[in-house]
Amino acid sequence: MDAIREVESYLERERDALLEELKELLSIPSVSALSEHRGDVRRAAEWIAERLKSAGFEHVELMETGGHPLVYADWLHADGRPTVLVYGHYDVQPVDPVELWESPPFTPTVRGNKLYARGASDDKGPTFLHIAVLSAMLKVQGRLPVNVKFCIEGEEEVGSAHLHSFLERTRDKFRADLVLISDTTLVGPNQPAVVYGLRGLAAAQIDVRTAASDLHSGLYGGAVPNAARSVAEIVASFHRPDGTVAVEGFYDRVRPLTEAEREEFAKLGHDEGELKRSLQLADLWGEPGYTALERMCARPTLEVNGIWGGFQGEGTKTVIPCEAHAKITCRLVPDQDPQEILDLVERHVQAHAPKGARVTFVRQDGGKPYVAPYDHPALQLAASAYEHAYGQKAVFTRMGGSIPVVETFSTLLHIPIVMMGFSLNDENFHAPNEHFSLDNFDKGLRTLTYYYHQLPAAMSGH
Amino acid sequence: MDAIREVESYLERERDALLEELKELLSIPSVSALSEHRGDVRRAAEWIAERLKSAGFEHVELMETGGHPLVYADWLHADGRPTVLVYGHYDVQPVDPVELWESPPFTPTVRGNKLYARGASDDKGPTFLHIAVLSAMLKVQGRLPVNVKFCIEGEEEVGSAHLHSFLERTRDKFRADLVLISDTTLVGPNQPAVVYGLRGLAAAQIDVRTAASDLHSGLYGGAVPNAARSVAEIVASFHRPDGTVAVEGFYDRVRPLTEAEREEFAKLGHDEGELKRSLQLADLWGEPGYTALERMCARPTLEVNGIWGGFQGEGTKTVIPCEAHAKITCRLVPDQDPQEILDLVERHVQAHAPKGARVTFVRQDGGKPYVAPYDHPALQLAASAYEHAYGQKAVFTRMGGSIPVVETFSTLLHIPIVMMGFSLNDENFHAPNEHFSLDNFDKGLRTLTYYYHQLPAAMSGH
Repeated sequence: MDAIREVESYLERERDALLEELKELLSIPSVSALSEHRGDVRRAAEWIAERLKSAGFEHVELMETGGHPLVYADWLHADGRPTVLVYGHYDVQPVDPVELWESPPFTPTVRGNKLYARGASDDKGPTFLHIAVLSAMLKVQGRLPVNVKFCIEGEEEVGSAHLHSFLERTRDKFRADLVLISDTTLVGPNQPAVVYGLRGLAAAQIDVRTAASDLHSGLYGGAVPNAARSVAEIVASFHRPDGTVAVEGFYDRVRPLTEAEREEFAKLGHDEGELKRSLQLADLWGEPGYTALERMCARPTLEVNGIWGGFQGEGTKTVIPCEAHAKITCRLVPDQDPQEILDLVERHVQAHAPKGARVTFVRQDGGKPYVAPYDHPALQLAASAYEHAYGQKAVFTRMGGSIPVVETFSTLLHIPIVMMGFSLNDENFHAPNEHFSLDNFDKGLRTLTYYYHQLPAAMSGH
Repeated sequence: MDAIREVESYLERERDALLEELKELLSIPSVSALSEHRGDVRRAAEWIAERLKSAGFEHVELMETGGHPLVYADWLHADGRPTVLVYGHYDVQPVDPVELWESPPFTPTVRGNKLYARGASDDKGPTFLHIAVLSAMLKVQGRLPVNVKFCIEGEEEVGSAHLHSFLERTRDKFRADLVLISDTTLVGPNQPAVVYGLRGLAAAQIDVRTAASDLHSGLYGGAVPNAARSVAEIVASFHRPDGTVAVEGFYDRVRPLTEAEREEFAKLGHDEGELKRSLQLADLWGEPGYTALERMCARPTLEVNGIWGGFQGEGTKTVIPCEAHAKITCRLVPDQDPQEILDLVERHVQAHAPKGARVTFVRQDGGKPYVAPYDHPALQLAASAYEHAYGQKAVFTRMGGSIPVVETFSTLLHIPIVMMGFSLNDENFHAPNEHFSLDNFDKGLRTLTYYYHQLPAAMSGH
């Protein structure tokens, strides 16, 4: 335990310098979805590569994936010990509506005990914890307790579009005994959680066209189709009034929740009234027969992420829009398949296209859902590491979000994936005023120090 | 007839100079809906006032309405002869999507025999014809055959918001024997039309809010309401699958079309196949039981003019939008009342607000529908004037558009309103690449010369 304490002390002394380093990374607007930020995305990758190189990691390189680059680095001198593949992502979500940010999204700002910036919590902050801990170990002890490979990608927020094919080609380089990912959330401020399941994702855009150009509603209104009305009718057709998804076959492959799982969810004591209050909802919404927590973590959804068409300015414009659009994403659970779900949704969309509407269905990202066996020692050790830092027993849970790469690693490398995150659900990951709790920054450093140190012993019997 | 020929000859000689003057007016971006163009709107008013003053009109002034100013001018020296109130508007529609314009909207450009610019056809071009003809008469003959008052407003494209209350206060100044308006369309390139009826307008914006901020669809999807879905469901509820409006009571006050009116419409020989082809429609749309022409001219509608909420960028953003919006306009026919229709629509919207959606209904413009008796000599003379210039008998018809000021004049001044336009339906008034046919520019000058000259004789027995 002296070794752990020694690294922890070093991290405590260097804490302010580490925070400044993270702020530097956060100030790079690496928005992967927007092509005008292509250069910034690469700059963030270069920042990480440089940081790993100066800490003593080897074979550092920006690997070209066909999209944004991936940062690779390793340290492989712990002979006979396990190899950990550390996954994280340095790309971030767009920032709009930017006027709702209290401080500029790429000017990292500490308010209260929180660090505000786009990417602070998803996922530059948590990724940086691994870099900081492993660098500290190299600095203090001259070596690491395990072998480590870094795989830090730049396309997570656009569905890890190129990662699967890239890892298919390069999988030998990424061979390891387990994958460690900090891109999930704690259940609450002092309730750590090991995530053993994730929902999958299927995304698409719906483009509707009804005429060659916008038409005057006085001249043509009543006789010609309207693209904005048409896209609204398509979107409105996705759900039944009770909140269930109306796409035929959508639930066919859903593995029912077991009684044991439902009991685990119930134990978490999730407060639906508090959920309503904290998000300022007039009401909760969704599929009947399940708790809100079950609906968020373990039931599939279809959400419209954006809708637009026609005039959006001030005042009145008496126009009949000739084109309109909607973006949708489905969250999937075992054993739903993203491609099959997109097939079903596309069929639904074409069947519900109103008269006069030409509809194009453009497939975007997809990722399969994932559920891991949670008796593996690498997952069990995660709970102990949390307990070491938080003084609180960790729970095992499934999460509502999607990390497409989890399914990729599972399929290509056949190794367990340990998801131990340090973010909180209310940290506005994909919204204005994203932030990261500095309490979890500190506890995260201690959790990971413990985890890396104890891993060889935990895995020795496996 | 020599007097008419003399003015026509002058207009032919001055034609290029007149066209350059119109281009100057068209180059002023007087978009009344957008506050950043407030200065440009005033500049257009000043341009017209200056032009009228230099032609010899008197009492020229910019009258403050509470919104954009109105240009007044008169010439009242034709003792014992009728007084014509010339109405037009110098404000224009917004230009978005600006990237679809083949030449910049405020750089007037002649291509083929068409003048392209925002406002060319609606309504700077037609309004300018009156200015040009009456100025030519003053120049050539030193006097006008009738008394004339100009009322050129700057808020027609935002529903003439202040005009009614303004004219209520100032109606004595605007006393006349008839109102002459060129803001309607011909039936076809060489088929002039005297419009004796217009649809009314009722406009509103629907604002939906479901949470304090946008939420991550992975974390919260399935348990919370979605504003984009909610607004889509509201918009989709407005129509039944057959195209009729589903708002309760919407059709209650609609005066049925008479057999005689339906026969008049049938005589126009409107080609629905050509309508589909020219607008590149996959299909026509609308209320069953009526022809497309009847639906466009004489049946009420509810159109969504714009819809928006959530992410509209490239790629995927896995967000649950917390707010979304739609803009709607209803076209109304006798005896529907705009305020009553907005009451019905608001009730419908609130009754169809999905669970968890807080909906605000914001009323915008309104204008009553209008139908004139077409046996009045001032209307009959319009047909003769068209025939003089076009060599083609004019038809009498009702139009689908709305000119709120027509109802205002009718209510406040109790005088006939003569609508004789020179625009064509396919001139993209509210869309990119608006243009005005130079053939109608030339014929319009001749039509109006004839009309003003013959009016005293036509009205003498009335």
